Amino acid sequence: MTFKEKLIAAALKNDSWLCVGLDPDLAKLPETIDRSITGITVFLKSIIDSTQDLVCAYKPNSAFYEQFGYEGMKLLETIIRYIPAEIPVILDAKRGDIGNTSGMYAKAAFELFGADAVTVNPYMGIDSVKPFTDYKDKAVFILCLTSNPSSGDFQKQKIENRGLLYELVAKAACRWNESGNIGLVIGATRPEELSRIRQLAGNDVPILIPGIGAQGGSLEAAMKNGSNSSKQLAIMNVSRSIIYASPEKDYAEQSRAEALRLVSAMRDLLNTD
Amino acid sequence: MTFKEKLIAAALKNDSWLCVGLDPDLAKLPETIDRSITGITVFLKSIIDSTQDLVCAYKPNSAFYEQFGYEGMKLLETIIRYIPAEIPVILDAKRGDIGNTSGMYAKAAFELFGADAVTVNPYMGIDSVKPFTDYKDKAVFILCLTSNPSSGDFQKQKIENRGLLYELVAKAACRWNESGNIGLVIGATRPEELSRIRQLAGNDVPILIPGIGAQGGSLEAAMKNGSNSSKQLAIMNVSRSIIYASPEKDYAEQSRAEALRLVSAMRDLLNTD
Repeated sequence: MTFKEKLIAAALKNDSWLCVGLDPDLAKLPETIDRSITGITVFLKSIIDSTQDLVCAYKPNSAFYEQFGYEGMKLLETIIRYIPAEIPVILDAKRGDIGNTSGMYAKAAFELFGADAVTVNPYMGIDSVKPFTDYKDKAVFILCLTSNPSSGDFQKQKIENRGLLYELVAKAACRWNESGNIGLVIGATRPEELSRIRQLAGNDVPILIPGIGAQGGSLEAAMKNGSNSSKQLAIMNVSRSIIYASPEKDYAEQSRAEALRLVSAMRDLLNTD
Repeated sequence: MTFKEKLIAAALKNDSWLCVGLDPDLAKLPETIDRSITGITVFLKSIIDSTQDLVCAYKPNSAFYEQFGYEGMKLLETIIRYIPAEIPVILDAKRGDIGNTSGMYAKAAFELFGADAVTVNPYMGIDSVKPFTDYKDKAVFILCLTSNPSSGDFQKQKIENRGLLYELVAKAACRWNESGNIGLVIGATRPEELSRIRQLAGNDVPILIPGIGAQGGSLEAAMKNGSNSSKQLAIMNVSRSIIYASPEKDYAEQSRAEALRLVSAMRDLLNTD
């Protein structure tokens, strides 16, 4: 089963394009949770237990695990293994290096940590991306236009006779997509550009859309502009506003309530027109 | 002591601008070395023992450790701790993410793994770089023009009225260099561009130059074009041709011999004119 088949199956079963970001942050953990790897494990497993029928995917960001050194990487393995097998896991790692080195990163993400997809930085070009796409049943989300304030520093530079840099990245990604396992990352904070990139990428490319909630992107605009003509393949990632919905011991219930609120809004949008 | 002071002190003491890449690769380890974390630890420690008076820095590439999952990350900690305190360690990780997430990567690299410097991918702009440069005694090497064949896919695109993308990255990096702790990564496979970037960056920015040896870059051209006017701050990274100099049990002696050969060539170049 390919990543895309697994993604669509989970999205249809749960009637949701919500992806929950699993990013452990000591400063934001509920106060009842012990500040230790054991405590974080309890916390993340509770979040997964309480949201797994509401999501199309989970997205752990590697940085939030690496901050705890090798014990954090062990936690990452534990958490990915805990996620039900039918729900795809996108490891947000933003990796990329020369060919043989990218191959090591791909092996780590897909074989060691057991992710179904990984985010990759395109700055070094095709030979930094190919070792990832060579895993044909896995997927590779290429950073295109990110959600952070300084994303325009380089991504929005105008290339002579060829449009903006992120458009060039999107076009290159589509050209590299021989195995049909490439996706794009476009921030929800860029709704107009999201629409243009969806048109350019066509109907078959999944778009991972971070930036809803804490970063200020609108769910409605992102759904409308990011989805394909079947209202699919726009993966709406939300991290902080779901997993840190409550600082109290009811955090799991409150996370579920916030996820449900977002999924209900999403279903309303999917069922209009 | 800042990274740059530590780097220059090591380079002067050892009369060398050689940086040895510590990249464990199961396919290339000497045949007498056990294919296990224990075996790799013995191997890397022997390489450090036999080259530490010949280098200005060591550069472990994170991917080669991550390929072994969390046990590999533990190995990375062990190896960085084993390197003599007076020799700076550049963790080649090519990280970068939105601000608070980059902060986690910076914490991991500098506080958990104990690196003195880290490589960072500039695609997401200044707010992905700043959490690293905020560690003022550490250093950040920004990918500018890399040594791989497809580095031109985006890095050499012509920006309207502003030169090539990698030149724009170099200029931005210099502008962001308020704390004087930014360096650049330029492949030895691009000697003409290396010369242009050195002129643009001035005398105070260290340039990390991979691509000599296995990737085909010339030591002489890289030294000449990458150094500043005092013939300093061009960090010549060599990995495979040194650490895998011999597949036999004499690997440590042969690694030392190859490092010495390169350092002698370097000293000849430094002492001419």
